Amino acid sequence: MEDLLYINVAKKMEQLIRNGVYQPGDKLPSLRTVHLQQGVSIGTALQAYYHLLDKGVIRAREKSGYFVTRPVIPEHPLPRSVRPSLSQRSVTIDKQMQRLRIETASRNFVSFANAIPDGQLLPLTSISRAIQQVLRDPGAGYLSYEDPKGNLALRRAIAKRGVTWGAVLAAEDLIVTNGATEAVNLCLRAVTKPGDTVLVQTPCYYGILQSLELMQLKAVSIPSHAGSGIRIEDLENACASHDVKACILVSNFNNPDGALLSSEKKRKIAAFANREKIPVIEDDLYGDIFFGAERPDTIHNYDSGGWVLLCGSFSKSLVPGFRLGWCIPGRFGYKVERMKLMASHASPSILQLALCSLLQNGVYDRHLREFRRTLDKHLTRTMALVAQAFPAGTAFTRPEGGLVLWVELPRQVSAEMVQAAAYEKGIAIAPGELFSIAHEFKNYIRISFANAWNKRTENALKSLGQLCRSLMSSNTGIK
Amino acid sequence: MEDLLYINVAKKMEQLIRNGVYQPGDKLPSLRTVHLQQGVSIGTALQAYYHLLDKGVIRAREKSGYFVTRPVIPEHPLPRSVRPSLSQRSVTIDKQMQRLRIETASRNFVSFANAIPDGQLLPLTSISRAIQQVLRDPGAGYLSYEDPKGNLALRRAIAKRGVTWGAVLAAEDLIVTNGATEAVNLCLRAVTKPGDTVLVQTPCYYGILQSLELMQLKAVSIPSHAGSGIRIEDLENACASHDVKACILVSNFNNPDGALLSSEKKRKIAAFANREKIPVIEDDLYGDIFFGAERPDTIHNYDSGGWVLLCGSFSKSLVPGFRLGWCIPGRFGYKVERMKLMASHASPSILQLALCSLLQNGVYDRHLREFRRTLDKHLTRTMALVAQAFPAGTAFTRPEGGLVLWVELPRQVSAEMVQAAAYEKGIAIAPGELFSIAHEFKNYIRISFANAWNKRTENALKSLGQLCRSLMSSNTGIK
Repeated sequence: MEDLLYINVAKKMEQLIRNGVYQPGDKLPSLRTVHLQQGVSIGTALQAYYHLLDKGVIRAREKSGYFVTRPVIPEHPLPRSVRPSLSQRSVTIDKQMQRLRIETASRNFVSFANAIPDGQLLPLTSISRAIQQVLRDPGAGYLSYEDPKGNLALRRAIAKRGVTWGAVLAAEDLIVTNGATEAVNLCLRAVTKPGDTVLVQTPCYYGILQSLELMQLKAVSIPSHAGSGIRIEDLENACASHDVKACILVSNFNNPDGALLSSEKKRKIAAFANREKIPVIEDDLYGDIFFGAERPDTIHNYDSGGWVLLCGSFSKSLVPGFRLGWCIPGRFGYKVERMKLMASHASPSILQLALCSLLQNGVYDRHLREFRRTLDKHLTRTMALVAQAFPAGTAFTRPEGGLVLWVELPRQVSAEMVQAAAYEKGIAIAPGELFSIAHEFKNYIRISFANAWNKRTENALKSLGQLCRSLMSSNTGIK
Repeated sequence: MEDLLYINVAKKMEQLIRNGVYQPGDKLPSLRTVHLQQGVSIGTALQAYYHLLDKGVIRAREKSGYFVTRPVIPEHPLPRSVRPSLSQRSVTIDKQMQRLRIETASRNFVSFANAIPDGQLLPLTSISRAIQQVLRDPGAGYLSYEDPKGNLALRRAIAKRGVTWGAVLAAEDLIVTNGATEAVNLCLRAVTKPGDTVLVQTPCYYGILQSLELMQLKAVSIPSHAGSGIRIEDLENACASHDVKACILVSNFNNPDGALLSSEKKRKIAAFANREKIPVIEDDLYGDIFFGAERPDTIHNYDSGGWVLLCGSFSKSLVPGFRLGWCIPGRFGYKVERMKLMASHASPSILQLALCSLLQNGVYDRHLREFRRTLDKHLTRTMALVAQAFPAGTAFTRPEGGLVLWVELPRQVSAEMVQAAAYEKGIAIAPGELFSIAHEFKNYIRISFANAWNKRTENALKSLGQLCRSLMSSNTGIK
């Protein structure tokens, strides 16, 4: 009897989902609620949910419960990766950057261009309270200079977080930086000198390309595949045929293609770095923003000899304007520490103390649970609208975390023209070319889903789709 | 009659000063008070004060009134400058820095080592209020990313301040940075490449030497003379005999020797920079902390073609822990702006907004008047104690601004040994070697007078003097 009971419960829930009573991203009733409302045992409720999990209709999320998964959109393929030419080249992406900045400076724009969470998605009251608490120190510690390595209590709080991705860290190994930007810059500076060659993935976050440009480094790139990320053979081949002095990889939810490296790949990359003695700078600034059941691990988890330099940030998930990040530079710790002192002396005391309190008192963890759920919903809606409003032949990623969707438009639609036309309508997007050193991705765009979500956002996305359609039919795209 | 009257008034005041009723640094009664209390006209009171000004007994201070000057200490000479070898060399001052950092990390120390104002000397309530005001923005602008060039209102507020040193600035020319450290780094990076030679003055703030080291630049140095600073011929000769790609100069109250360049010298340096097309990076981080009648001008005031890159900071005078500075990179504006974006994206929004409010609502100007008076008093007391407690043959500067006193000990007293012995007593000082690239100034120390002033500070200074005396008599100093 009980065996059939759970099927009945499951069918009922599935019908409610099909009826739209529970929307994609919505939370399902707790096991206890099912038990009370439907008069079945908690064990039966659990069996019913397992059944739905198996069918992919719902998903479990760490300490949060069960949620309706997003609808499957089978007709839309993943964006294709490009195979970048293996030759190394110097990096100049300035022209495109200038354009992006002009567009996003205006506050009246609906901007899908920046991968930064809107203030509405952040725990403003708690942040404000944390700062006010810091200001209460009669000794005004918030005005003195901090240890160049960073406030010790903050470094301890960050080290504690390592357990969420299976790492055992130590405060002494950590250096607090002005955002992940400075973290990556300092690590790069510690392991390279101007003219050296660095391996990056393609597509690659333009901030990383700028760091290379700033330090007059050459780049060689290997393809990242939406979904699975880079291939180990590509990494090995590129390092075999070039004198690669360092690799920079975003292992979790690569910006822009959302690629997530498997633990197996991470282990292999760490082994490769230690075997070949090539430093791998791992920029894990999206790892905390996962939509799956658990926080993904890092390449650094598998490091044995200090050849993996891990960088992180709180800009994407808690306090963008604070510009606070960190790094664990492994065997290059002493060098990076000195460079931090020389580059900016120390990060601002007051912001370090406030962040420390947000980590210590659990605000960040509580916020993350809510934040991830909200972003997951935004992603579902964004995907649904792109599937519906964009031209046939549009492909897009299925990111399992992060803040952005990577969209491949039909070949004849030029992202540059989309950007220009969208600009006229007060909508900003990031064109694909920004994410490569060889001007690839001319028909790709990146769409952030970290905005506040409202009717205006939805309409802007629809307009964007319409605009792509009209550009396609006018056939004035890329030859 | 009136003629004699003013002499009488002046004599009376002078007697009160000699009696110690008015101490060095104390404010004298206003002209109106003299008029009311002594029954003389305001004109007579003014004549009396002019008389005392002429005699050097009192000094006038901008918008503040008249003050007792510090006692003349004729038996103490100025520290000697050294003539650094003119050969260029790479920079490594790491060993000494490490030591300085360990010592000053402990909060129980009486530290004369750091040139940073104690919290007690800062307008804490106003700073706290400014931050709280920023936090009230319901749009949470304080959490979004700022324009990489810096918040526009803040840049306007800084530009307005230019009039205090006779400059007419524009917000568009300004870039907000993470302290003057980043400002100097970005300017250096814009005008040099690794391996280039940069001219510095000796003694030179170790932070500047660290910037050279960070960027793998070579240095050639010219002497700075306590009081008058560098000589124009030295600058010209060094640039004639070396391929100097840039000069870095602290024109106002050079750290550590307090040297102040005359307007005439500044004009000549600006002309030289423009004639020879050699960028001069002017680090004016102490200009606001003047003890004389008016804010000194800058080399930048006399720039005609954008070859002088002016850097400033609020770390020394208002909000040390905010790490906010700025630069006006002249003809290198576009390059520096891009480098700021690449190096740290933008400075923290919340701190920029709070600083902007402190500048706009007059808090900074009001604070500066009080702050300068307090520091002037600290300096007077520090000089008196050094004159009294340190061994015969000690020389020290007479800085007209800034936060530090530069002390030359008798040749047989090693600053390194003073540092070590002082450390045992819980006192920190900065040894002279830190301020040169060729390990000069082995018997010099730098003493900050920006601490809170109390019995403990005084006793620590006396201990320091005693310690130097005993080191001198034990004769274990420099050979």
